[in-house]
This record gives sequence, C-alpha cells and structure tokens, in this order.
Amino acid sequence: MTSIGSLSSISDQDLILPPDVTVDGLRAALVEMSEIVGSNNVKVYTKATMKPDKDGQYFNLPKEHDLFYVLEKDEFLASAVVSPGSVEEVSGIVKLANKYLVPLWPCSMGRNLGGLRGSVVVDMGARMNKVLNVSERDCTCLLEPGVSYFELYDYLQKNGHENLWIDSPDLGGGSVVGNALDRGAGYTPYGEHFSMHCGMEVVLPNGKVMRTGMGALPDSNTWQTFQYGFGPYPDGLFTQSNFGIVTKMGFWLMPDPGGYQAYLFSFQNDSDLPAIVEYVRQLRIGMVIQNAPTIRNTLIDAAVYAPKSEYTNSKEVLGDAEIDLIAKKIGVGRWNIYGAMYGPKPMRDLQWEALKATFMQIPGASYEFPQPRAEGAKQTVLHMREETLKGIPNTYELGWLDWTCPRGSLLGFSPISPATGVDANKQYQMVRKRFLEFGFDYIGTFVVGWRELHHIVCLTFDKTNPDERRRAHRCIELLIDDAAKEGYGEYRTHLCFMDQIASVYNWGDGSSLKFNEQLKDSLDPNGILAPGKSGVWPARLRGRGFEIKRSTEYEGIAKSASTKNTPRL
Amino acid sequence: MTSIGSLSSISDQDLILPPDVTVDGLRAALVEMSEIVGSNNVKVYTKATMKPDKDGQYFNLPKEHDLFYVLEKDEFLASAVVSPGSVEEVSGIVKLANKYLVPLWPCSMGRNLGGLRGSVVVDMGARMNKVLNVSERDCTCLLEPGVSYFELYDYLQKNGHENLWIDSPDLGGGSVVGNALDRGAGYTPYGEHFSMHCGMEVVLPNGKVMRTGMGALPDSNTWQTFQYGFGPYPDGLFTQSNFGIVTKMGFWLMPDPGGYQAYLFSFQNDSDLPAIVEYVRQLRIGMVIQNAPTIRNTLIDAAVYAPKSEYTNSKEVLGDAEIDLIAKKIGVGRWNIYGAMYGPKPMRDLQWEALKATFMQIPGASYEFPQPRAEGAKQTVLHMREETLKGIPNTYELGWLDWTCPRGSLLGFSPISPATGVDANKQYQMVRKRFLEFGFDYIGTFVVGWRELHHIVCLTFDKTNPDERRRAHRCIELLIDDAAKEGYGEYRTHLCFMDQIASVYNWGDGSSLKFNEQLKDSLDPNGILAPGKSGVWPARLRGRGFEIKRSTEYEGIAKSASTKNTPRL
Repeated sequence: MTSIGSLSSISDQDLILPPDVTVDGLRAALVEMSEIVGSNNVKVYTKATMKPDKDGQYFNLPKEHDLFYVLEKDEFLASAVVSPGSVEEVSGIVKLANKYLVPLWPCSMGRNLGGLRGSVVVDMGARMNKVLNVSERDCTCLLEPGVSYFELYDYLQKNGHENLWIDSPDLGGGSVVGNALDRGAGYTPYGEHFSMHCGMEVVLPNGKVMRTGMGALPDSNTWQTFQYGFGPYPDGLFTQSNFGIVTKMGFWLMPDPGGYQAYLFSFQNDSDLPAIVEYVRQLRIGMVIQNAPTIRNTLIDAAVYAPKSEYTNSKEVLGDAEIDLIAKKIGVGRWNIYGAMYGPKPMRDLQWEALKATFMQIPGASYEFPQPRAEGAKQTVLHMREETLKGIPNTYELGWLDWTCPRGSLLGFSPISPATGVDANKQYQMVRKRFLEFGFDYIGTFVVGWRELHHIVCLTFDKTNPDERRRAHRCIELLIDDAAKEGYGEYRTHLCFMDQIASVYNWGDGSSLKFNEQLKDSLDPNGILAPGKSGVWPARLRGRGFEIKRSTEYEGIAKSASTKNTPRL
Repeated sequence: MTSIGSLSSISDQDLILPPDVTVDGLRAALVEMSEIVGSNNVKVYTKATMKPDKDGQYFNLPKEHDLFYVLEKDEFLASAVVSPGSVEEVSGIVKLANKYLVPLWPCSMGRNLGGLRGSVVVDMGARMNKVLNVSERDCTCLLEPGVSYFELYDYLQKNGHENLWIDSPDLGGGSVVGNALDRGAGYTPYGEHFSMHCGMEVVLPNGKVMRTGMGALPDSNTWQTFQYGFGPYPDGLFTQSNFGIVTKMGFWLMPDPGGYQAYLFSFQNDSDLPAIVEYVRQLRIGMVIQNAPTIRNTLIDAAVYAPKSEYTNSKEVLGDAEIDLIAKKIGVGRWNIYGAMYGPKPMRDLQWEALKATFMQIPGASYEFPQPRAEGAKQTVLHMREETLKGIPNTYELGWLDWTCPRGSLLGFSPISPATGVDANKQYQMVRKRFLEFGFDYIGTFVVGWRELHHIVCLTFDKTNPDERRRAHRCIELLIDDAAKEGYGEYRTHLCFMDQIASVYNWGDGSSLKFNEQLKDSLDPNGILAPGKSGVWPARLRGRGFEIKRSTEYEGIAKSASTKNTPRL
C-alpha cells in the first residue's frame, strides 16, 4: 500500500487495472480523487504488496483485499482505497469514477473488501464515522457508515442514553449501517435491521444526493420516525445493491423494556431438531417469543470455547459419538436454544410458563438461567449470549474461526426455508452429507425470523491451504444447487457465489435479475458502482463476471461430487 | 357506459380521448383489448353518460369516474374500463397500451377511480378476486387485488381459519392489496400494512411479469414468509407508484393472541390533546401499547351516529360550547382514545394497570369497556371500534360522509408529524383555523404509528355544491402549504393534490422526484402506466400535469386566504 504521493514511483506493471481503464486513466483518476479527499486519504495498491507475511499468512492485508479469501488471493484485488470525509466528497469521487470509468467498491467497515479486480475501494467508515443524532424522545438515531456497534453502544452509554438499547449481530465490530444495508440481523425484538431503519441519504451513481422517506421534505422533523414519505418507497433498492452509496441512515432504538432475562434450553438428541423448530415457530408467530432465538448445535458452542484440537486428536469429520462426548464435556445439548424475555418480571413470568411448558415436553430437555460468575470463573456461552440477546456488542463468536486452525477463515451458507421441523432436518442432513464428503465439521445455527427459518452454516477452513480452500468453495457451490432443488435460496453470500445465487433466483425467465439490470443501466449507465454486487452487472461489463473459475475446474477435489450427479437428497 | 360491441355506434366526439391518441387509435386499442379479455369485460365510456342522476347526484357513476370528485366532475374521466381475468391478460393489456400509447389507470376496488383524462381504467378487482392461498401453519395468505377485507374475513371464517385474524382499516369494503399498495393502515398489532406484506407478483410496464422476494426462486416455499430474497429489495417501489401493476400479494396474518379487550379513555377538555399524545407516544414506543390506537375528537364520533342536523340547527362551523354539548349528549369526551389489548388475561391485566395509571393522571379522564348490548340497544362507537380494533371489517365510519348533507363527499388531509403534544396541538390549531375560515367543522383523529403521528382530518363536503367543492379544494391546498412550513408532509392524498405534495418533498433540488422520474423513464418509456400518480410523470407527458386549475383561479371563495399571505401559524 502506497500513498498517493508515491504514485509516480509505481511502475505501470505494478498497478492493478480495472477493466476498460488504461494506466494513464487510473493514474489521473487517483490524482483527481486525492484532490477531493486530500492526499492522506488515498492509498494505492500494488502487486508487490501481495507478498505473504513471513508465516505464509495475509492477516495484515489492508482494506483493499478480501480478508477471508476463498479463491486465489488476488482475485478480488482493488487498485486503491479512497476515504471520503463528507457526502460532498463521496459525490465528487462518484463523478470522477464516471469520468474515468473506474469502478468503485464502497464498504462501510466490512471484512470482505475486495470487489471487481481493479476497483477503487471507497472506505466509507474511515472518516465518516459520527453518530449524527440521538433522540431520547423518539428512540431513534442517525448514523454515518463508520459507526460500529461498539461505538454506538459506547456513545449511548456515555451521553446519558442508557435507556436506549441497540441490536448487535453476533460480532459487534461491524458497521451498523453496513449490516442493515446487507440485511443483517440481531437478537433483540429489534433484530431485523432493515425493518428497523428509518430514512437514508444516498449518493446516486450520477453523483446526485437524495434523501428518502420524510428526509425528502426540507426541514423534516420526522426523517427518523416515519419510514415512507410520499410516493414510491425506494429504500429497499439500496440494500444488497449497487444502486447508490448510503452516506447517512436512521435507526429505531428499543427503549429499555423494563426487565430482561436470558435462558437456555438444552436438548440431548441430534434428532430433537424437528420438534424444537416446530415449537419455536409456533411460539414466535404466536408472539410469546418476542425475538429471534438461536438453535445452536454442539460444535458451534464448542468452537466458541476452544479449537477442535482441545477436544480431540482427530483430524476427521467428527461423528455423533464424538460430538456427544464434546456436548457432555462443555455441558450443553446437541441442540441448544439461547433466548431471552423482555419486559417487567410479571410479564416474563407468564412468558416463561409458556416456554417451559412447551420445550420441556421434549424428552431429556433441560433449562438454565445465567448464574452470577465468581471472580475468574469461566464465562459460559450462556453468559455470552446473555449479552448478545440484550444487544450488547461483543466478539465472542470469533472463536469459530479457530476451529480447525489458528486464525482460520469462514465461509457462510445461509439458506432460507419454511420454519418447519421437516425443512430444518432436510437442510441439516443435506449440509452434513456435503460436509462429510468434503471434510468439514458441521457448525451451525437455526434462527426463526418473523416467520422463516434462517439456517446459518459456518464452514471454517484454512485459507493458507489451497486444497482446503478449493474444497470449501466447491462444497458451498454444490450446496447452493442442492438447496435450490428443494426450493431454498440464500439470503446473503460471499462475492464468489453472487452470480451463482442470482442465477438461482430465476423465476419467470429471470425477470428479477433483468429488472435489476434495467435499473442498473438507467441509474448507472457507465457501470461504475460495485459492478457484479448481488449478481447485478452493468451493461458495460455484463457477461464478463468476476472471471471466477468454477471450482469444477480445480483438480484433485472430491471428483465424485458433481452438480449433475448429485442425488436428490 | 357502453359495451365494446356498440363501439362502432359511438360517435367520435363522444369518446374521451387520452393525450397523443387519435380516435382511430383508441378504437383499435379497445377492440384489441377486448380480444384479450373478452368483449364482456370492456366497457366504453362516453361523454353522454355524464348526465347527472335525477336528483343531481352522480352516485351511480361506474368505475371510470372519481366518485368523490372535488374538481369539475369530468376532470379525471376515463375512456373505458377493462377487467382482466389473469396475469396473462394484464400483461396483454399492458403491451397493447404500449402499442397505442393509451394510458392505463389500474385500480383494485377503489373509489378514486379516475386518472389522467382518457385513461383506460384496469379494474383489477372485478375478476381477479380470489384468495389464492392461506397457510394455517405460517399464518399467511396470498391474494388477488379484488379480495376485500370483508371477503378475506369471510373466507377465513368459512374455511376453518378462525384462528387467523386480519387487519382492516376503518372501512372494510376496500381491497386488501390496494390498501397495502397505497400504504394504508389498520388498528391491530399488524396495522402497518406494507410492513406486514410478504411477496408480490407484478406486471411491469413492458408487460413482463416479475415475482419479488423469495418468489423469484422457482418452486419457492417461502414466498409468503420471508420478505427479501437476494439482492435489491424492490417491493417499496410498487407502492404509491406507477412502476407496475401488482397481480398477487402475500400478507402475514396475526394468530388469535389468546385474548382481547377493547377500551375507551375519554378526556373532557379540548386542551387535553397534548398530554394525551405525549403519553400515547411513550406507551407505544415502550411496547405497552401494542397497536395504533386512535385519538378521536368529539365530532368524528358524533358523525358516526348521526348527521349534524340531528344535533343542531346551525349551519355554521361549530364552536367549543356547541361541541361540549354534543359530547355530553353522546357521552364521549372532547378527545377519546379507542384502543385494545391483545393477549391472555393475566398479560392484559398488567398492561391495563400501566394504561390506567398513565391516562387517569389527566384531570377529568374516565374509562370504560364495551358492555354487552341488550337486544335492540344502541350500538356505541366503542362497540364499533371493538370490532375494528380486532380487525373485523365494517362500514360504521361511513357516517362521516353524511355530516353536512346526505351522501356527502370526503377529502382527506393526512400530514405526518413528530408524535408530540406540541406538534399535535400545532396541527390541530392550524386545521381548525383554516376550517373556520372556509366553513368546515373539524372532524379528525390522531394516530401514533410505530413512532410518528398520523393526523387524519376528514373534510366532508357537498359535491353537488360547486362553491363548497371549491372551498374544500382551496382549503386543503392551503393546508398542504401551511403544513410544509412546519416540516410536516402528507403521506397520501387525492389525485388533485398529488403534484402539489410531490413538489413539497423537494429536498436536494427535488432529487427524490427526479429519481422517480428517472426510474419511470427507464421502466415505462412510453409513459403508459398511471401517468402522474404520486406526482411522477413520464417524459412524454411531463410538465403537462393533470391540467388542473389551481383553486386560486376560482372566483368567490375566501379571497383573503392566499398562499402568499398566510401568516405563519
């Protein structure tokens, strides 16, 4: 990574060029961008920087790269990182990108930071990181993209807003804005983050600035309280999308509900999953459960505590007997519901009666509440989830990454299905079968949102091992197809699967993707904003794709598993 | 109204031509449309039909007209009504509209049925009126546009789904789909209808058919349970919009919460409004109040029971003393909260303690619950709201219309403001002042949604009286400007105010409207779908508008009141 001041000293061959852009074009674009944001806020990336660290790792890679790369490590390499400090600077960068046809890849504070090769990463979080407003009266806030859950939480605590809760996902280090834009979720009653947003300011691909909802009214006093405004409601267009760069976003905050109690129900048998899911759906839709509790398998809890090597010498995929032993050792079930109740104690007592009566019908079920810890005593997953379910940001779940190797990588597989026991079990078996085939332990959790079942599968792998990386890639690729055959679709994914997943959502001759492409061509005729995000390519680059090798071209991995020969599970 | 078979007998001068369309073009378009939908399903409208009924009323006007016209009665006159029977027929009509440049004005089952003069009304509700699916397991349904709240309710009752509640707005005769598309609301915890929809099927202006959310996945089993799918989320684009015709729409249904209790808090003083709104906001955001209760003034209740002439001989705007008398006569307060609690009795008892302790702090407050009625005993507004708050469709509130004359008309004024006492009072005084100036009684209700205050003002007028119609028009026009000066914007309106309101949402050099126009030009290049809806005009017709006279051109109405001279309230 080199400062813009040294741009002239970088050789032409060492620059990472985007499609259709010449060396001179890229140099001119970067110089002009630095005139907008200041030379300190443009970093140029060179091929020379791609040398691995001494231990063969790439953990010190800066923001222009996909930290958890699953493809070759330079696949999604950016040409530079630009850090704007205001909406006017974002607008200026966007106009320059149009002038030079340089693709931009905006990110808030994320980890998967690569984009189309040669893109300029627009690091929205670096300097635009302020809490712009908090209304104690309305229980709302207005944020810039660089505010993390930790920072928002701290801000509220330090400024007399202890009464306002936030809703953090499993890891609190990410951007509140970024998470909502990618339609992430957390675990309080405000856990569905897009539903709980209110108002956006967006820089459009032509550089114009728009405010949505009531923000379109000058001197609006309801931008953060009423979502819609007048006329078509566009906010959803800017989620999982490349139609604009969000520079401000409003959120609703939950006031302290007047009481809180986390709980854990543990179930002894792997085969209990269908019954658990059936009960959770009924209680969730029936409004007895107020949030989205997680139904976690043994190994996800085990991975939070320690790497696999602490439990076994085996390098093989763990079988049921081994998992039973681990469950016993860490004192959890094969499946575990971590949930919470929100409200005054008499309300919670009524809820608890219903919860206990329901889940304790499953033979072998047990429950517990988090107990005060003696100084130095072990913190259990229940203690950790007690914080998460209250919206308190943390990083406990980073333990997953180390399951098979220190500082490992993660690939997610996140299909949506009906919230039924049959579907939960079908997915669970589908994934376990593929994971066994490709050599991965099943680590996962099921979450019932408003009505649907999110299955969050965590494939942990060693990115420094090319074979393992390719197995991971191929395994998820096959699972996407397996899932589609059963009518299940993913709600989010890694860059390298975006085209595949978009192609699966192909009802009506692919009318959904065609609609997105039509909007893209209208809003971004030069195709400069995040080309290929969510499978939506601009006309200029359509059909080229990320030039990702399909993993079937890889040699030496699970050859028996091909999409065509996959039996219907 | 004439059947398509008689088209050749209608003289050229008698046809209602849309802009840019010749007599031959309109004739050809209608003939070809009748080949798609069948000749029984096309009705041609002629100028001759516009003669008033014997009593000078127009109540028997068919669907091609604005029933509650405020402008001249032929202002929004359609050329024909076409009733498609399937999504394929809708698609076929849209393609023909593109061929002949005939504007289409889709409606579900609505009342404001006119559109751009000469448009062909696409009566979505006439034949596409099926409940396509109900899932008892997921508590969802999938509907065609012609299903009314009454019909959905009856369907559920008759098909063993008594456990599933619906959420009806004040009048149950409208379309469930249409209400959600115009972002209407009801009064159960599922009252915010767009939030509670899940999945759409849309015919785009080019005739292509798209399914949103998980519907984009072939054989999807979660179309009605998960809202988003993968990639940009477009559903909001099809609300209050002219970007597509929705042919199917999914909804979440609330399962019986296990208990229900409606209540009424009455407050004796006109000046109690600010305190009431402050308390409602706190309890609503604090999740003690689970739905959107209404804060109604005396006269809205009075109007439900009987016309003004039953209470007074006065034709003047009623003053406080007169309203106090009416309040006493009908046994309500000057302001009245009609609300309900949802859940088992022990839960409700806890809620009730909080509600009672809060609202009874206001001096003179009283409360009551609906009492069983003896056979033939009078049904109170509380009895009526008990049904509405439970989602049971009804038409009680039609009484408003008759306040000043039999079969009167209604104009709504619906600004959004912060949910504070100060703002509620400012709006209330603003509207009363204008209503006094123009000669209308204030009839209104305040509703706290998720966080914002909806002020629903009902201006009732006699449409057969041109002077009264013009006063109504002018009064609302001025109120829109009054409200904008205070940062308040309307969330819905009559056709004749759409351009004005869209022009008020003009932050950032009108970027929101420009964005909508850009989408319109991309999706509907021929400008055939509902031109001018929500102020969004296609390029072909932009700047022409509805050719509505600004009411300032009218003679003889409250000349002192001009936008420019309005004092800041």
